[in-house]
Amino acid sequence: MLDIIRPTLLLSQSICKDNIRKMVRKAERHGLQLIPHFKTHQSARVGDWFKEAGVTAVTVTSVKMAEYFAEHGWNDITIAFPFNILEIDGLNTLASRVNLRIFVNSIETTVILKQKLKTPVRFYIEIDVGDGRSGVEATNFGQIKRILESVGNNPHLNFDGFYSHPGHTYNAKSPGEVEEISEKVVEKLRILKQHFKEEFSDLKIGMGDTPSCSLSENFDGVDNIHPGNFVFYDLVQHSLGANRLEEIAICLAVPIVAVHPERSEAIIHSGWVHQGKDSLRDSEGNIHYGFVVQLNQNGWSEPIPGAKVIKLSQEHGVLSLPGEVIQSIKVGDILGIMPVHACATAVMMGEIWTLEGERLEMMPG
Amino acid sequence: MLDIIRPTLLLSQSICKDNIRKMVRKAERHGLQLIPHFKTHQSARVGDWFKEAGVTAVTVTSVKMAEYFAEHGWNDITIAFPFNILEIDGLNTLASRVNLRIFVNSIETTVILKQKLKTPVRFYIEIDVGDGRSGVEATNFGQIKRILESVGNNPHLNFDGFYSHPGHTYNAKSPGEVEEISEKVVEKLRILKQHFKEEFSDLKIGMGDTPSCSLSENFDGVDNIHPGNFVFYDLVQHSLGANRLEEIAICLAVPIVAVHPERSEAIIHSGWVHQGKDSLRDSEGNIHYGFVVQLNQNGWSEPIPGAKVIKLSQEHGVLSLPGEVIQSIKVGDILGIMPVHACATAVMMGEIWTLEGERLEMMPG
Repeated sequence: MLDIIRPTLLLSQSICKDNIRKMVRKAERHGLQLIPHFKTHQSARVGDWFKEAGVTAVTVTSVKMAEYFAEHGWNDITIAFPFNILEIDGLNTLASRVNLRIFVNSIETTVILKQKLKTPVRFYIEIDVGDGRSGVEATNFGQIKRILESVGNNPHLNFDGFYSHPGHTYNAKSPGEVEEISEKVVEKLRILKQHFKEEFSDLKIGMGDTPSCSLSENFDGVDNIHPGNFVFYDLVQHSLGANRLEEIAICLAVPIVAVHPERSEAIIHSGWVHQGKDSLRDSEGNIHYGFVVQLNQNGWSEPIPGAKVIKLSQEHGVLSLPGEVIQSIKVGDILGIMPVHACATAVMMGEIWTLEGERLEMMPG
Repeated sequence: MLDIIRPTLLLSQSICKDNIRKMVRKAERHGLQLIPHFKTHQSARVGDWFKEAGVTAVTVTSVKMAEYFAEHGWNDITIAFPFNILEIDGLNTLASRVNLRIFVNSIETTVILKQKLKTPVRFYIEIDVGDGRSGVEATNFGQIKRILESVGNNPHLNFDGFYSHPGHTYNAKSPGEVEEISEKVVEKLRILKQHFKEEFSDLKIGMGDTPSCSLSENFDGVDNIHPGNFVFYDLVQHSLGANRLEEIAICLAVPIVAVHPERSEAIIHSGWVHQGKDSLRDSEGNIHYGFVVQLNQNGWSEPIPGAKVIKLSQEHGVLSLPGEVIQSIKVGDILGIMPVHACATAVMMGEIWTLEGERLEMMPG
């Protein structure tokens, strides 16, 4: 084990690589291209594990993240964000080196891209399949047609198809509901594909949030999936039924700095600057910021029943612990926190350590 | 103005320096030493402005932050966190270079410090004045006495007094309630001082959260105050009555990447990786993640009435905007977000730009 003296984000390579392999196999089984979203891990080294599993294309959220993964050998990158036309110079530079896909969601964006693009890129139109965040509504064929017409035959903008992120699966109350939402999304996308297929015979349909990609078995008409979180999984995904607890690949190791037996609490060095601020409600409706585990030679234990992070400030965390645990711990011990939201914990920590002691670099903040 | 193409944290030097000067003057008026908490800005350059205003001692949350400010010329540093004994090596190194104050909140911590400290440090006992987070309860004279006895006459551990963070002022529903809580805290600390003054005639009493330090005029018996957030202020502080909107010194400039007139919304490149995830409720009880302002030659405008950040994901933000604003903005425009929680926004962004175009370095992540 590592010599841990301050909050340290641990990763089980075996769990992580299993998560990658399982999603690769699922994509293969359904004839889908897996274009994983790398916003969760933001690590070139974790990216290498995807390469080893046969993945050749990735999804990112920003030009900056595209630059990072381009530097680390990725040549097929989708920037899954309504393109920020102010970053046109960065896009031109990067597009001259690697194959980029961007989102063109409006005529205004098309007009500026046609003026300023110097290198060909491929583009998706992002489709709002019910999440209500960004993209054109799935049934708004007229608007999609107008965007495509605004592009015309511009040699720098090549239409690739439709991309969708069904983020509303995160509001589901059960795994069954995730699947129901996912079914509806697939149906919307199938109709959309049908409509535009005649004119664009090669168009691709991309979808995929981690809950759908983990739980659904219906990808009828879908060509690409781009889940991200599954690489680590977390308690939010677990609450949706997307993963088992033993599939969570990261754990935040934290020092105990005070024990308060009189209130069955301990103070840890781990605040929102380490974990992120995401919370969940337990079965009694109380908010918590993570389950507590024991670290061991093989990584970490199952969650200690009844043990939770109940308060978070900038650098302090407060654990509620059962009496027998309170009696057995002392200042200077290390416990583990199973994260509520892996993307947030990874971003906040900015570096990850494997159980074997390898430091996994992440994209600089 | 700067050439802004992606989320950029702007700082008004004049507002920030005014905030510093006002708190310095308030401390002087009450005969207090201001030992500001630097966890909000984490910037050596902003630290310099405190030096220019006459401040000579600072408060931080971690050994790492102490190291950063020691490197930038600070020689009197309080690490305001239950001391993490696993970081004893870092403490020994740093204590050989600068004057450190640490927290000793338990006998377990004393025992280990007595074994392992190689250089003298001063220490506070942290007092829980009602926040229920860390420290010894203010009325638990017995426990305080036992900790002091466990230290004994150890030449490496010199008792300096009591430190308290009345974080429960953040639960107040009005400025009056902040003052009431603060009054009670001051009274508790006065009794504590009275009790231990005989044995320790030089003991100091430290308190201070930004709401109390901004609103209260009663610091009877207090020696030091250590607020942090006031350097920037934010919407949380404003909701407590601690500052006026025009005293907020930072603003997150964000590009518009999509406009959705049909739902009076726009999408910005600004998610929780930029702003942090803190929210407030507006007068109708709806959650929001910041007010929206126009940028101008002098910085930024008052909040646009009715304009708010209503959703946040990792890199996307969704603005709700009044019809006339929706009509006047377009993709590629820049708007400003007045932050809910300045500490979070500063930490997430990791760098700050003055309106004059100076980049203010922050502690590396």
